[in-house]
Amino acid sequence: MYEDKFSIRAQTMKKSVIRELLRYVTRPEIISLGGGMPDPALFPIDVVQDVTRSVLEKNGKRALQYGPTGGDEKLKKELIKRFKKIEDLDININEILPTTASQQGLDLVSKIFIDPGDIVIVGLPTYLGGLSAFNAYGAKLMGIPLDTDGMRVDLIEDKLKVLRRGQKRVKFIYVIPDFQNPTGMTMSLERRKKLISIAERYDVLILEDSPYRELRYEGTNPPMFFSLAPKGVVVSLFTFSKTLFPGMRVGYIIGHKEMIDKLITAKQGADLCSPTFTQAIVAEILARGFLDEHIEKLVVRYRDKRDCMLAALERHVDDFSGAYWTKPEGGLFFWLNLPKYMDADKLFPKAIEKKNIAYIVGSAFHCDGSGKNTMRLNFSYPTLELIGEGIKRLGSLVKEEVK
Amino acid sequence: MYEDKFSIRAQTMKKSVIRELLRYVTRPEIISLGGGMPDPALFPIDVVQDVTRSVLEKNGKRALQYGPTGGDEKLKKELIKRFKKIEDLDININEILPTTASQQGLDLVSKIFIDPGDIVIVGLPTYLGGLSAFNAYGAKLMGIPLDTDGMRVDLIEDKLKVLRRGQKRVKFIYVIPDFQNPTGMTMSLERRKKLISIAERYDVLILEDSPYRELRYEGTNPPMFFSLAPKGVVVSLFTFSKTLFPGMRVGYIIGHKEMIDKLITAKQGADLCSPTFTQAIVAEILARGFLDEHIEKLVVRYRDKRDCMLAALERHVDDFSGAYWTKPEGGLFFWLNLPKYMDADKLFPKAIEKKNIAYIVGSAFHCDGSGKNTMRLNFSYPTLELIGEGIKRLGSLVKEEVK
Repeated sequence: MYEDKFSIRAQTMKKSVIRELLRYVTRPEIISLGGGMPDPALFPIDVVQDVTRSVLEKNGKRALQYGPTGGDEKLKKELIKRFKKIEDLDININEILPTTASQQGLDLVSKIFIDPGDIVIVGLPTYLGGLSAFNAYGAKLMGIPLDTDGMRVDLIEDKLKVLRRGQKRVKFIYVIPDFQNPTGMTMSLERRKKLISIAERYDVLILEDSPYRELRYEGTNPPMFFSLAPKGVVVSLFTFSKTLFPGMRVGYIIGHKEMIDKLITAKQGADLCSPTFTQAIVAEILARGFLDEHIEKLVVRYRDKRDCMLAALERHVDDFSGAYWTKPEGGLFFWLNLPKYMDADKLFPKAIEKKNIAYIVGSAFHCDGSGKNTMRLNFSYPTLELIGEGIKRLGSLVKEEVK
Repeated sequence: MYEDKFSIRAQTMKKSVIRELLRYVTRPEIISLGGGMPDPALFPIDVVQDVTRSVLEKNGKRALQYGPTGGDEKLKKELIKRFKKIEDLDININEILPTTASQQGLDLVSKIFIDPGDIVIVGLPTYLGGLSAFNAYGAKLMGIPLDTDGMRVDLIEDKLKVLRRGQKRVKFIYVIPDFQNPTGMTMSLERRKKLISIAERYDVLILEDSPYRELRYEGTNPPMFFSLAPKGVVVSLFTFSKTLFPGMRVGYIIGHKEMIDKLITAKQGADLCSPTFTQAIVAEILARGFLDEHIEKLVVRYRDKRDCMLAALERHVDDFSGAYWTKPEGGLFFWLNLPKYMDADKLFPKAIEKKNIAYIVGSAFHCDGSGKNTMRLNFSYPTLELIGEGIKRLGSLVKEEVK
């Protein structure tokens, strides 16, 4: 009834395929390898109990009042300490902005940069929530394929040349360099450096989305884009959704102070401020030094789960010529490439009805609708037992499709 | 350094005058009559302690996990019960959407309705955060003056006729019918009915923003726009920021289910979901039936504060010919009209430097920059003592300006 009233952006907005698919998952007999939820068994509920009690006791009047749009001071100071410790990175307090988790970061960055028709370069595939945020502001998305070293940076320069000639405005290049969503791939140091040099030469920003960086199960992290690039070239998004819990929606942006200043102005109109209460709780958790030991625990547990899924894939899916995947060094996902003639979209109803399993169709992550033969598999949420059983069922589903 | 990169909307975005002015207020010797903060002495910290403990104990894994974009089921059910009880209004579960307080409601409604150049009709003056939200999506604002019965509805129809002839698209009429921010005025029932009939005739939506409705200190509320109008004509925004506390940022939208559905899609890109944790806490507070007795307490306390400010205004400011105000029947604000030749913007530095008081300049609430001789005075936050002393100082400030 509002079709003639909705804005152009609203008319073209699509519901998140993930969130729609996951509606099926409420049936208890379904094993979900969809979603990107952390394991709730690992939520540090006791710590939250204790910290929350203490925040309310000592600081209740402030924690329940409006806070500055620019975010909780203590939280920002704790984040700065942590960047120094973990990344050896010096961040100034005016270069950081707490957000209602990193999805709001994607929205605010889009809001201050994208005019309808502007181009954003994204991975093919990439995180669906990024695509939704950019689309909502009328961006035109241009996809760059990935391989096992992350985004094919070698393909970007030619694109940029063509776009420049056509006088198209490219606003930023969106990357998830560590354990990318959905592929699990990590971008090599060499490619990071190359992409920065291209971004500088073509005067394009890099938007680094980094929700999984601390969840590494083997090897070592290459430096962040933000650390490698000259000031002002990179803006980076982070969240505690995977390292602590998503339910408080605490994330943060780091960027040049002039950009942060504009983001704060945009945030005033978006929500005045993120919850003071949850920011105060997370700040206190950080101040207690609890996060490092907690992440160690997560890493052990998720490494087991990843290994379990890998073993199950090798056992149950490996005998199909053409199906392949890469072992992710961290993060939450495997990325399964089926033989080209298979269609994961079309398989989905069968997976639900006949096999009682759910996954996310790979096409959802492709801005051009390609990737029909791919799917994303999550190993952080299901138990070891359900991972094994889920992949076994997936194997039997795929087996029936083999030509 | 990003000037050539920012989107058009970002280039025209202005920092909230309120939030900028309130930076001055950190000096402890300043009495602030600015802001719109609730009295933190009234925050029910003990209840929050108890409820939070219980939510984490019984439901921690869920309260810390991602939740549906459409919001917490229990919260929605409690809100529905409350609408029935307080407003005798039947709301369906698919007609309600919890938000990160009502500022996000303003942002989301703008996002799904406003294309650049679309017209939004607003009060002259009206809430600054509404103006920011509409501006961020490129709306053209058209102001309608208010009198003691609220928005001058009699002036709207002529405007709409002219706009229709000019083929301008008017997206909605923004009203704060109860104890309007900033004027404190309540729109009469007659005007509400008239505005609805105009909105229907011209096929324009009404956006009802209702943060203060339950804070009535005398008399009775006319029905909400949402109750009076046929389904689909009105979308209404609410928040617990004034009735419980702002620090959890819990608000909600009610509207036609097709609009709510589109708002959910927009919210997916904006923040995936509002904090599950704070929604669960507020839901449990409602379930315990605590809110009604709490609001009674607020009403008693804020009525005292209002009366205190009224008495102080009468005592210290009433002897200036031309300065006037109206006693608000609820809400948080007095609206002071100085003599026409005075300029509250220009007086502000003097107020800060010489008198150690802060207020919000009335011009900030006028989309056309008018209202230089007006100011908004808040009585919910300062203590009785500070209200008296603050208005005394304001009186002496104004006295020095009398010609």
